[in-house]
Amino acid sequence: MSRMIILTEAELRKVIGLDRDAVACVEEAFAALATKAVAMPPILRLDIPEYRGEVDVKTAYVPGIEGFAIKISPGFFDNPQIGLPSTNGMMVLLSSRTGLVQALLLDNGYLTDVRTAAAGAVAAKHLSRQNASVATIFGAGMQARLQLEALTLVRPIREARIWARDAAKAQATAAELAGKLGFPVIATSDARGAVTGVDLIVTTTPSEMPIIKAGWLEPGQHLTAMGSDAEHKNEIDPAAIAGAGLYVADSLKQTRRLGELHHAIDAGLVAADAVFTELGQIVAGRAPGRTSNGQITIADLTGTGIQDTAIATLAFARAGASKAGTTFES
Amino acid sequence: MSRMIILTEAELRKVIGLDRDAVACVEEAFAALATKAVAMPPILRLDIPEYRGEVDVKTAYVPGIEGFAIKISPGFFDNPQIGLPSTNGMMVLLSSRTGLVQALLLDNGYLTDVRTAAAGAVAAKHLSRQNASVATIFGAGMQARLQLEALTLVRPIREARIWARDAAKAQATAAELAGKLGFPVIATSDARGAVTGVDLIVTTTPSEMPIIKAGWLEPGQHLTAMGSDAEHKNEIDPAAIAGAGLYVADSLKQTRRLGELHHAIDAGLVAADAVFTELGQIVAGRAPGRTSNGQITIADLTGTGIQDTAIATLAFARAGASKAGTTFES
Repeated sequence: MSRMIILTEAELRKVIGLDRDAVACVEEAFAALATKAVAMPPILRLDIPEYRGEVDVKTAYVPGIEGFAIKISPGFFDNPQIGLPSTNGMMVLLSSRTGLVQALLLDNGYLTDVRTAAAGAVAAKHLSRQNASVATIFGAGMQARLQLEALTLVRPIREARIWARDAAKAQATAAELAGKLGFPVIATSDARGAVTGVDLIVTTTPSEMPIIKAGWLEPGQHLTAMGSDAEHKNEIDPAAIAGAGLYVADSLKQTRRLGELHHAIDAGLVAADAVFTELGQIVAGRAPGRTSNGQITIADLTGTGIQDTAIATLAFARAGASKAGTTFES
Repeated sequence: MSRMIILTEAELRKVIGLDRDAVACVEEAFAALATKAVAMPPILRLDIPEYRGEVDVKTAYVPGIEGFAIKISPGFFDNPQIGLPSTNGMMVLLSSRTGLVQALLLDNGYLTDVRTAAAGAVAAKHLSRQNASVATIFGAGMQARLQLEALTLVRPIREARIWARDAAKAQATAAELAGKLGFPVIATSDARGAVTGVDLIVTTTPSEMPIIKAGWLEPGQHLTAMGSDAEHKNEIDPAAIAGAGLYVADSLKQTRRLGELHHAIDAGLVAADAVFTELGQIVAGRAPGRTSNGQITIADLTGTGIQDTAIATLAFARAGASKAGTTFES
């Protein structure tokens, strides 16, 4: 007989939000990746091409943390045609000591949204110029909205642009964000123009062809690419990756296989075994971040199991403190 | 908002047992592996050596089946010292069309026990002599008991032996099984003697050193090794694998990496790319099974995600028919 807590999406939304605590929790997770004997196995991935479906399962164990999450993350891209969201999923939190299930976090992907946006904030905090105030987000979906919000937690953002191929969608997202964040957010369908003159760029699309060309990036800009989490996805011109003043991976093992780096390797512009800094090394002070105001920096985020363990642990602790959730025995 | 069914171990025990239906369901799954475009990614494995813990995550998608299982299978081998079982876990059943969670099967490892024993029955049905009536089980744990029961579903077993290093444990398991199955079951600590003169052998131990030597096997015997599901586990002398009249894998990809085959490859007795029959090919009639009464046959079972999808699908259908479980919304 084992006893677990079940937390619904609504309960999780009450205890976890995209705020400084969430950013700090993900920041600590990246530091742990660089400083502790973290076990983070390769992502399990299942493809169901008949229904344009894919499922990723991620996990990571951090010595000293009582629990570890196993996150099930499905993306079924025909779902919107039948009125369902594309992404979904849940996390299972297990005890690091006994393997018993401690909690089922039925978040429908919410915690993934938060920890992914929080990683964008961590990258911007450690790589963009301190006074970065103008940001462009590529994409107009949930992550586009959250990434812009996340930037405001770490940089004095006072103006933003939303790029999307679908002008109406860009317009709607821009209007919503302007209302929520209280600064001008303009929509654009001109990718090149969207890059010109801004301090910070975040790409959040599922693109399979580069949407940002190498020649477009300007001295001093920071770019975070977080859309590519699978072999076939590619947002950034491989030449931009190869030519960046500083390229940083969330997990080098993953970006070599799944991220923007993978396309630069495939294009023959970067050696397959070339070593690059990981974000956690910078957070932990073990590697330098940006070294000049003119440097072009790029963060390549594929999403890591350690972020899931971090956010699940925070959610479980907060739920316990507020006695949220349903106890279930089996 | 998504809606799912939660099934407890007690509810699952009411709808699924180790019976001919469970064997047929796993048999069909193996056939599908040989005949359909099944997607079965490599097992995700996380090790937590501090607590002698390991977690396997398995999955498989079978075209034409509405759902697929993601199975979380922890084994924490210090647990018995604090009064907890070593193995545990749960399955999540997702829709193949939408990726939405359909059911949480909180089985504490019960469905894994059943589908693992059922695979033993499938192997014996297709590989042992039709009149095989004397069986030896190595090991005295849950799988030892279930594997013997499973054999009785497919062969006219009338006598059995239980081998274990711990004589008292072997004795207790033998007595229990004799009472339950109604034929003589004797305990022994003599491994060689346990093999002599029997028709069928099943090894169910977590051994890391071979317990069965190559010279011990006799013409006509069938051996199923199901204990080795990880690189470091090894029950059978590599020379026995290399010298078998017929070696059969549940999944050749897995046994090359995790099973008994892996040790025969490491010992240089079998080429790393040598091709062997898979159990599903025999079930589907696409490869011959046993070809003579004198042949020594060996089945190497590492446990496959398709067995999990098969048993989870059966459990979900049965639970639906009997309106078992709790509906949960999140």
